[in-house]
Amino acid sequence: MNKTISVFAPATVSNIACGFDTFGFAIDGPGDVVKATIDMSFSGVKILKISGDDGRLPLDVNKNTAGIAVQAFLNKIGSRAGVILEIENKMPFASGLGSSAASAAAAVTAVNFLLEKPLKSMELLPFVIESETSIGGTAHADNAAPSLLGGFVLVRYLEPADVLNLPVPTGLYYAVVHPQVEINTSESRQALPGNIPLKTAIKHWANTAATVHALHTNNLEMLSNSLQDFVAEPVRSKSIPHYDQVKKSAIKSGALACNISGSGPSIFAFCDSFDKAKKVSEKMKSIYDDDEIACTVYYGKIRKNGAEIV
Amino acid sequence: MNKTISVFAPATVSNIACGFDTFGFAIDGPGDVVKATIDMSFSGVKILKISGDDGRLPLDVNKNTAGIAVQAFLNKIGSRAGVILEIENKMPFASGLGSSAASAAAAVTAVNFLLEKPLKSMELLPFVIESETSIGGTAHADNAAPSLLGGFVLVRYLEPADVLNLPVPTGLYYAVVHPQVEINTSESRQALPGNIPLKTAIKHWANTAATVHALHTNNLEMLSNSLQDFVAEPVRSKSIPHYDQVKKSAIKSGALACNISGSGPSIFAFCDSFDKAKKVSEKMKSIYDDDEIACTVYYGKIRKNGAEIV
Repeated sequence: MNKTISVFAPATVSNIACGFDTFGFAIDGPGDVVKATIDMSFSGVKILKISGDDGRLPLDVNKNTAGIAVQAFLNKIGSRAGVILEIENKMPFASGLGSSAASAAAAVTAVNFLLEKPLKSMELLPFVIESETSIGGTAHADNAAPSLLGGFVLVRYLEPADVLNLPVPTGLYYAVVHPQVEINTSESRQALPGNIPLKTAIKHWANTAATVHALHTNNLEMLSNSLQDFVAEPVRSKSIPHYDQVKKSAIKSGALACNISGSGPSIFAFCDSFDKAKKVSEKMKSIYDDDEIACTVYYGKIRKNGAEIV
Repeated sequence: MNKTISVFAPATVSNIACGFDTFGFAIDGPGDVVKATIDMSFSGVKILKISGDDGRLPLDVNKNTAGIAVQAFLNKIGSRAGVILEIENKMPFASGLGSSAASAAAAVTAVNFLLEKPLKSMELLPFVIESETSIGGTAHADNAAPSLLGGFVLVRYLEPADVLNLPVPTGLYYAVVHPQVEINTSESRQALPGNIPLKTAIKHWANTAATVHALHTNNLEMLSNSLQDFVAEPVRSKSIPHYDQVKKSAIKSGALACNISGSGPSIFAFCDSFDKAKKVSEKMKSIYDDDEIACTVYYGKIRKNGAEIV
């Protein structure tokens, strides 16, 4: 009898203002579900079907992050198992919410469970990163790590992947708006400067340090004044419709901070209550509604758990 | 009758590896003592004498950081008091241990006490920074803040000066060697690049964040692997005799990290015990002894208190 399991991995927000390529967090909201089946009648990985992607994700296991991650995992542990994947996209594609990382995190977690956990969750990270690198060009773990492990994480270097789990203030809530316009991650990354002024860099590293201090001391005011971005936001915000207006409106509605999620087009905000997160998301949405740009909003808590069985 | 008070302010280590212009700490070691006297027979500031500086510090109140800081303080509070300062330099001049900040911190703290504390310690910081700016050219608070307030601090921006007091692991000790060669701070600063690669900046801001996490979680191993420097050390270490050898020897003797203190020539190391700090300081000293370069070593704890009455 074949063994089957379904795993959910959450959407994630990365590039948290000053913490470009460094901070990321999982959200209590949408995510991807991957159903994996072990079938010993063959060896390797097959993707049986993908739903919720409007036919845009490849069934080819060498071009799909879930397929790539599972193949890398099987190679690493030297398994000759046959794996059939069914991917259910429950989150927007190319949204800046880590959809490619989520399906890879869900898939590799599912297969690890089915094979009786030869590796720890943390040890699955390199496969998720590898899958993202294969399709996106740049190795970064700030979506992969929180989708796999949950929480608010600090990522350093990549070989070996090093992820620190930061404390999350109890009163911290997020709001996200995803305007349905498309931004290509690789292109967006290329638009960033190769060099930045040392003075700007100093502001950023003082602020990432202060962000961690704020998280440890439950100081939302400090979190608010630390989450500034002098590097990515000035460049990338230009390609997100109504960005300045959305940010202004979020802050005016009480958000502690507001910035681009990943490389966009999603925009996230932090708030100090559930009601404010709801209100902020509504205000952000209303700006896109006014311009007849379809958008989706999410709000709630930072998700403590990463990929897990459903 | 004239009122007199003496205040000690500690030497400080700044530019802590990844935390260039951001982190600083006070040391349980040398410092400056300033004796201040209120004399209502005149208005303004006089420096009566300076000892321990081999005649190198100016008695001119407009050229001496202690004189400049006290004048700025008196102007701010609108006092017409006459202040006489006697400065006792108990730490090396131009050593990279914040001597100019220490005498200003001691002086302004003394006068604030004598005038019955119109300002809090934290509010004295702008005057110390102003005095350093007047003589050095660049506003930075990473020596001024720990000398005035003590502890391990995180400094952000400068207007308004914003200083966060970080927790210090109980088992953390420092070692410092001061080789008696001279390096000019302004010149040393000019040698740094105006721009740095974004990739380098990301490593630094991930590491300053990890440093704060390590301090909060008492994780000396993480502190050790976070205190890396890809910006100042490669440039500035070249002008410090035997730098590479000293660092190598410190790490080999068990130091958690080793880097330049301020803009040099002093070199600091962190250790996980008093004995190791002593041993590391001896090893560092032996390298200068071998080359007949005079040097002084200090080792001990990070000093909790800043400027205080003696």
